[in-house]
Amino acid sequence: ELVQHCQQQLNPSQDYAGIRILITAGPTREPIDPVRYLSNHSSGKMGYALAQAAQQAGAKVTLVSGPVNLTPPAGVAVVKVMSALEMHHAATSRSAEHDIFIGCAAVADYRPESVADNKIKKSNDELVVKMVKNPDILADIANSEPRPFCVGFAAETQDVEHYAKDKLTRKKLDLIAANDVAKTGQGFNAEHNSLTVFSKTDAIHIPLASKLDVANALLSLVLIHYKK
Amino acid sequence: ELVQHCQQQLNPSQDYAGIRILITAGPTREPIDPVRYLSNHSSGKMGYALAQAAQQAGAKVTLVSGPVNLTPPAGVAVVKVMSALEMHHAATSRSAEHDIFIGCAAVADYRPESVADNKIKKSNDELVVKMVKNPDILADIANSEPRPFCVGFAAETQDVEHYAKDKLTRKKLDLIAANDVAKTGQGFNAEHNSLTVFSKTDAIHIPLASKLDVANALLSLVLIHYKK
Repeated sequence: ELVQHCQQQLNPSQDYAGIRILITAGPTREPIDPVRYLSNHSSGKMGYALAQAAQQAGAKVTLVSGPVNLTPPAGVAVVKVMSALEMHHAATSRSAEHDIFIGCAAVADYRPESVADNKIKKSNDELVVKMVKNPDILADIANSEPRPFCVGFAAETQDVEHYAKDKLTRKKLDLIAANDVAKTGQGFNAEHNSLTVFSKTDAIHIPLASKLDVANALLSLVLIHYKK
Repeated sequence: ELVQHCQQQLNPSQDYAGIRILITAGPTREPIDPVRYLSNHSSGKMGYALAQAAQQAGAKVTLVSGPVNLTPPAGVAVVKVMSALEMHHAATSRSAEHDIFIGCAAVADYRPESVADNKIKKSNDELVVKMVKNPDILADIANSEPRPFCVGFAAETQDVEHYAKDKLTRKKLDLIAANDVAKTGQGFNAEHNSLTVFSKTDAIHIPLASKLDVANALLSLVLIHYKK
């Protein structure tokens, strides 16, 4: 396939004026009991950078955010959630009012089947946590009606292109941005990132840069495909 | 039993001059794969308040800290760790050089039996995570030689006194500070806390106050028992 390297800075000005964007960001926390939870290393920085860049480009932005230690960008409507089920409800109930959906959150794929009312005692040598699949926010929004333009993220540690393209097709997305979280200095909790953005027909590489620069470059790509 | 209410403020001045204190703080993160982990809602605020109060009271403080979003107090030696196994090693290898050990961290009782090298794919409808017990930092230090004076914490959501006293006896601790994390406005991630401190013979209640005030009160109690 064709992998193009965008070397020039892509700077949207007010290109997003009048466009409503829904963005999810951060990790989710899946409770096991009142004190324990399952989560992941997402810092939310990429999603918050996207919200900031979109707002600065003139978009009306709604940010559905899992638990992070970041200050929301000014002018952005923020909906705070904890679990994947909460994020699913917050995003799907708002998607029809938005033109573009960018699923940047690292949503937990699984949640414990049951949540204990009280702290589980460590009386046994082993603890088996049975987990069930969470609903798929990206796929549910991509299959909803009216359907916003749908952009997914794929955070993988191996075979990044293979899994990203599979996710694009399987979830019926318009674009998917893949990053290799196993590479040091980028991805989860880093200040910088690089992405490869796949559509059905091509792949564009956004080279390593600050997450805000990467966000601006991604938004430029999204706009091109959205307006097609 | 006797539960006394300490209504007066207990303010140590330089009472801890020359005393070496080892404190653990924060949660631990138990990796499942490169992106997922199991953790708990501890913010580390109580442990950091103890480190600050002890340092201000003249102690030489070592703080073994799990992943938190706090600035370490000035003058305190900080050892950063992620998992319970790392915290166990960091604390037990340093305990002999300290006079008092305060185990304030919310150490994960269990860790996944194996850590996947790559991100687990969500191909199955269910995921079963088999977990094994982590080593017990408090019990291992309380049974070591030379043995520091040992203070534990019990974060419980029910039968707080019962579980705290059981933990005191079973782990052979000198004191245990119990807080009811199910009460709103105190405990995990709150700015305030109240504690009930149990020794083998009595129980002292430290009423709801800022975590720094509660830390000072607890350190005063610790010193009384340590000097006995």
